[in-house]
Amino acid sequence: MVGGGIGAFIGAVHRQAATMDGMIELVCGAFSTDPEVSKKSGEQLFLPDNRVYGTYEEMIVAERSLPEHEQMDFISIVTPNHVHYPVAKAALENGFHVVCEKPLAISSGEAKELASLVEKTGLQFAVTHTYTGYPMVKQARHMVREGALGKIRKVVVEYPQGWLSTRLEKENQQASWRTDPEKAGPAGCLGDIGTHAHNLAEYITGLRVAEICADLGSLVEGRRLDDDVNILLRFSNGAKGVLHSSQISAGEENALKIYVYGEKGGIEWHQMEPNTLLVKHLDRPVEIYRTGVDHGNYLSKAAMHNTRVPSGHPEGYIEAFANIYRNFAFALSNHMHGEEPSPEVLDYPTVKAGLRGMTFIETAITSSRSDKKWTPLP
Amino acid sequence: MVGGGIGAFIGAVHRQAATMDGMIELVCGAFSTDPEVSKKSGEQLFLPDNRVYGTYEEMIVAERSLPEHEQMDFISIVTPNHVHYPVAKAALENGFHVVCEKPLAISSGEAKELASLVEKTGLQFAVTHTYTGYPMVKQARHMVREGALGKIRKVVVEYPQGWLSTRLEKENQQASWRTDPEKAGPAGCLGDIGTHAHNLAEYITGLRVAEICADLGSLVEGRRLDDDVNILLRFSNGAKGVLHSSQISAGEENALKIYVYGEKGGIEWHQMEPNTLLVKHLDRPVEIYRTGVDHGNYLSKAAMHNTRVPSGHPEGYIEAFANIYRNFAFALSNHMHGEEPSPEVLDYPTVKAGLRGMTFIETAITSSRSDKKWTPLP
Amino acid sequence: MVGGGIGAFIGAVHRQAATMDGMIELVCGAFSTDPEVSKKSGEQLFLPDNRVYGTYEEMIVAERSLPEHEQMDFISIVTPNHVHYPVAKAALENGFHVVCEKPLAISSGEAKELASLVEKTGLQFAVTHTYTGYPMVKQARHMVREGALGKIRKVVVEYPQGWLSTRLEKENQQASWRTDPEKAGPAGCLGDIGTHAHNLAEYITGLRVAEICADLGSLVEGRRLDDDVNILLRFSNGAKGVLHSSQISAGEENALKIYVYGEKGGIEWHQMEPNTLLVKHLDRPVEIYRTGVDHGNYLSKAAMHNTRVPSGHPEGYIEAFANIYRNFAFALSNHMHGEEPSPEVLDYPTVKAGLRGMTFIETAITSSRSDKKWTPLP
Amino acid sequence: MVGGGIGAFIGAVHRQAATMDGMIELVCGAFSTDPEVSKKSGEQLFLPDNRVYGTYEEMIVAERSLPEHEQMDFISIVTPNHVHYPVAKAALENGFHVVCEKPLAISSGEAKELASLVEKTGLQFAVTHTYTGYPMVKQARHMVREGALGKIRKVVVEYPQGWLSTRLEKENQQASWRTDPEKAGPAGCLGDIGTHAHNLAEYITGLRVAEICADLGSLVEGRRLDDDVNILLRFSNGAKGVLHSSQISAGEENALKIYVYGEKGGIEWHQMEPNTLLVKHLDRPVEIYRTGVDHGNYLSKAAMHNTRVPSGHPEGYIEAFANIYRNFAFALSNHMHGEEPSPEVLDYPTVKAGLRGMTFIETAITSSRSDKKWTPLP
Repeated sequence: MVGGGIGAFIGAVHRQAATMDGMIELVCGAFSTDPEVSKKSGEQLFLPDNRVYGTYEEMIVAERSLPEHEQMDFISIVTPNHVHYPVAKAALENGFHVVCEKPLAISSGEAKELASLVEKTGLQFAVTHTYTGYPMVKQARHMVREGALGKIRKVVVEYPQGWLSTRLEKENQQASWRTDPEKAGPAGCLGDIGTHAHNLAEYITGLRVAEICADLGSLVEGRRLDDDVNILLRFSNGAKGVLHSSQISAGEENALKIYVYGEKGGIEWHQMEPNTLLVKHLDRPVEIYRTGVDHGNYLSKAAMHNTRVPSGHPEGYIEAFANIYRNFAFALSNHMHGEEPSPEVLDYPTVKAGLRGMTFIETAITSSRSDKKWTPLP
Repeated sequence: MVGGGIGAFIGAVHRQAATMDGMIELVCGAFSTDPEVSKKSGEQLFLPDNRVYGTYEEMIVAERSLPEHEQMDFISIVTPNHVHYPVAKAALENGFHVVCEKPLAISSGEAKELASLVEKTGLQFAVTHTYTGYPMVKQARHMVREGALGKIRKVVVEYPQGWLSTRLEKENQQASWRTDPEKAGPAGCLGDIGTHAHNLAEYITGLRVAEICADLGSLVEGRRLDDDVNILLRFSNGAKGVLHSSQISAGEENALKIYVYGEKGGIEWHQMEPNTLLVKHLDRPVEIYRTGVDHGNYLSKAAMHNTRVPSGHPEGYIEAFANIYRNFAFALSNHMHGEEPSPEVLDYPTVKAGLRGMTFIETAITSSRSDKKWTPLP
Repeated sequence: MVGGGIGAFIGAVHRQAATMDGMIELVCGAFSTDPEVSKKSGEQLFLPDNRVYGTYEEMIVAERSLPEHEQMDFISIVTPNHVHYPVAKAALENGFHVVCEKPLAISSGEAKELASLVEKTGLQFAVTHTYTGYPMVKQARHMVREGALGKIRKVVVEYPQGWLSTRLEKENQQASWRTDPEKAGPAGCLGDIGTHAHNLAEYITGLRVAEICADLGSLVEGRRLDDDVNILLRFSNGAKGVLHSSQISAGEENALKIYVYGEKGGIEWHQMEPNTLLVKHLDRPVEIYRTGVDHGNYLSKAAMHNTRVPSGHPEGYIEAFANIYRNFAFALSNHMHGEEPSPEVLDYPTVKAGLRGMTFIETAITSSRSDKKWTPLP
Repeated sequence: MVGGGIGAFIGAVHRQAATMDGMIELVCGAFSTDPEVSKKSGEQLFLPDNRVYGTYEEMIVAERSLPEHEQMDFISIVTPNHVHYPVAKAALENGFHVVCEKPLAISSGEAKELASLVEKTGLQFAVTHTYTGYPMVKQARHMVREGALGKIRKVVVEYPQGWLSTRLEKENQQASWRTDPEKAGPAGCLGDIGTHAHNLAEYITGLRVAEICADLGSLVEGRRLDDDVNILLRFSNGAKGVLHSSQISAGEENALKIYVYGEKGGIEWHQMEPNTLLVKHLDRPVEIYRTGVDHGNYLSKAAMHNTRVPSGHPEGYIEAFANIYRNFAFALSNHMHGEEPSPEVLDYPTVKAGLRGMTFIETAITSSRSDKKWTPLP
């Protein structure tokens, strides 16, 4: 693991998610740019001293030199955005598989380079668009793609948060790097959560956003990056849509929601009640689809593959995260044993989703600065 | 009453709303363009034959000629859009107060003319932007305006319906005139419900939409007017926002929702659960404000004035409608008795709200046809 | 109308409900035991002086002496409980139909006498078990009775309120008579709302409660009647159940809920979100049934007959109330014209429901005082 | 681990919960009464052959003989009920700490013996009353105990499930042992989930159930144990209550809910939306308390200690389970290092809660068979 030391947030989530299913073990790490912090973090995680490193370069060299069966198998990158690219590059160049936080990089140039390296090396590369790990998101995707809603006409995806309603960056480490262009890259809210919303819309519908009209704002005085995102969408098939996201929606927690409407029906999913999927019809009552190992009679294989417990026992964010790690681990194991992974296993976000995200971010920034209404996505 | 005969929908709602509080009585009507239908409708409503008219012109002349205390006091216009203007004009010119369905007219020119006539005659003129009649909408407006949320930064208002997901206009009278430019005017979904959404946003926040970027669509093949509306908003005070509305959101009923966020908190209101107002704070739990005559300890005068029953006894759409009629009736009574109405009584949508709506509609159409990103509202 | 003067609550609801549909007009009243209050109340309701009476006896005599087509058609009794019986008796004996608040009387003896009088006179008699007026309650009843759930096994009905958590009776007129055995009769919470819960359970399921085990409590110190009700139920068909109700459930509004489970599925209805009926199945997703004139494709005739507006336009408590009045008025009109009312029209609570309620109340009191576990209902 | 082999359900949950926080590692197991199944299960769990045992007796002997730092530290018992006692007894007698599924045993005699052994040996003993592990349950307990609701007057706890609506025991392993008195003990629904409901009520309120009136039923023909539980409760402080639970509530998933009302307010918690706690007041709006590491400004230390992620990132059943394991592990670590555990660490259900549960079960069975209304808990 690179990053995720004491004081960080997402690193701990990665560790809980990775180890939940007994398939992955934390074996080493460079947890902080401060070697002291890295060391202490390693201690708290019960790692032996010699597997806790001061820098990621050091880690890669040292691990590479270990006997093959003792080496780490892959690297999880849980650092601020600007460090994703160099670590991922070094990992790939040294033959390590990668799990990387989103956004994949701070420019589409970097992202493209990583995508090429992945193709060249044949290594596994997951990008943690966590929300695609929820069983009911899998179910939504399945239903849309098998035509249960007919041709898609409208998509609304919204992702409001409120935690940056004040200038929290002055005092809070999480807020600080996320609002600093040096560390977060050119996008604030857009890169941090808007990109999740975009990813979810394309993931579920299988459509591509063709052109957008964006209005990014920095609504808290003194903020250096966008904290509010409003975008009109037009999809490749003629469908229309809206994506809005914010970190100044005071009082909101993490309220990602998506609504997809087709000729024959609609679906609605809320991340904060993730085990429910509303399925809407033209001429009969709305149905409440629910996560559960006992719901195999109506849930898709994709949903069932990512479910752990019976209905009514809530599965949450960490389980969604764990689904990405578990599928990645299955794929890795298949890879190592020369087996063909099942479609369910392969259904985790890869470097391609990461690259697509960077393209969306850059197009949204371009659009927001333009007087022209529509800007196409490359 | 003009319109609202057998087979119509909104006329019956007007009658239920108007008579609920025992202040208003239906005394006459021209219920249909077909005199036979008008006559039959009048019979069903227990009206004497001589007060049921074949045309609105006939009605106005006949009523005008009755002794003053026997005349109707005002006219409710519940016809398709294209008839609003001529009836309203005739009513005002003959000294009758008016309650008119929205949109006020089919052009801002007509709307302006009506507004001038109202000013000239000093008559009362209500436009039934029904949703402003809900107690919790009054409460939201009160809280925003007294600064409970601080400066407003973001407004999201959405109004999805699904009933026009198919070409219902081929068989259904309600759908037919609403999708016919001859009868509905230049706007479909935009005029029918988008204008409610816009009205609600300005009503609650007290802000004016300054410029917009609209994408109107006709997503059902063969439809002659827009059935889908997506608009980016910029408000006069720098706040940003999104308005989206649709009649092809398959499976949605009448899901008007509004979210307003300020520096200090936010509010959220759903028309389909109208007696609940969520009030969000930066650093303490969300509060659930609830309609109820027993909630005077925390609800505003404006909310309490428009509430009939104790908390937990749901008040609905007809009651919201009745609030507009009741306030209109109070204002009329005050007017007749030369009294000063209270601020709570005066708080019903007037011809000005109707004119503002027409301006919004026309600007949205202009914006949607333009390649320019932003179009200002006059 | 008898009762419902200034300061009263339920009288106004009766008037709003009765007049909403343009079928019933308030023509006279004895609104208070204080003739001055009665007179003033009448004035506020725009009644002529000579139709506002000082006592109900006076009213009955005077109205009886009017020409038949000028007389009131029926009497609404909206007084505290102890006055129900004498007014209802006098009304029936003088040939007037009756609408009476629940509980029907303060003893089953009185109730039986009224039931006999109704049978003897052939007059209409409605008891306002309001909650049976909701469209989704009609739908639930329809589905249970047509066997959609299979044989019923379990019923849970709960009715918590919190408004009597303090000794509100010291200062509040509504609370005062409801907690006074002289005016409310032998039951507090049990008679005021517990009886609604019991009525709803039998109304929806068509089953009879066969025996009960009750624990009534007065949990606020100094209270003279029960304010908390917990009852185990056994139904005639072997089904089991629980009824609990309270007026000291601090912070609850009017949270009547019912759950019915059968061999093949279940239903769930909440009075505070009355337009939703959850329908549960053994092996497929829960369905959300919703009120709406546009839902005739899946709602029963009984539900549709009691619905006024399209789905998504909330109908509330006053509309439910109005459904009882409207059906009563239809039945009256049929009665007057010698027509056969439809089953939908006849589906309003009558004196029989009122008598059944009194039986339940008395049995619950007996059971609560007994050491024996089970007490049968006669 | 004893039990939890291929085909079992709860064993996997225990493993996920135990390993999530990186403090506990699965080192050995006797996963099935069938040695072949045990062996295969161990393989799938990446255990070395020599740590996978055919029987628990074998496991205890073998582990005991390993060098101390290689031995397992504690045993998780995840078998059907009738095996809890012998395994727990053997574990304690051989010096191993224990985590045991509920109910603790199949008689209060067994339970008492285990409680004595725990006291004698000073070993740690957790019983997985999982629902006490949720942060919002901790918060509820904290608020009730610090007096936020005033004196408690009423408790309603309900736990409906629907999965045994048919005779699933004929074909399903989970259903089969749960409805077999040989394996489940004398209680079906009562022991499986009713005991969770009872535990939750006492855990949150700190009150003791003093006497009960129970009606147990077997509503599915041919079922050998109770599948429906309805109980009136009286608490030690005079509060009243209702506990009902069922496994034939068709269409219900795992709908454990609790409502507690005091003189000053109430709380409401639903297991299926576990991150929300409704807090109700006499004279101001209901508040929505929410799980989240960022809610330290209003959540208690107890809630915060058991929370992993920021608000809006749902924590679920496995996390609640993991909280019990994590606290158990902390306590064990403190125990091993001779440290004093914090009150938050010690707040996990122990053998005492297990014993209390058995007492409740036996009293409910006695009460259900009795004609007397009230049966006291010892």
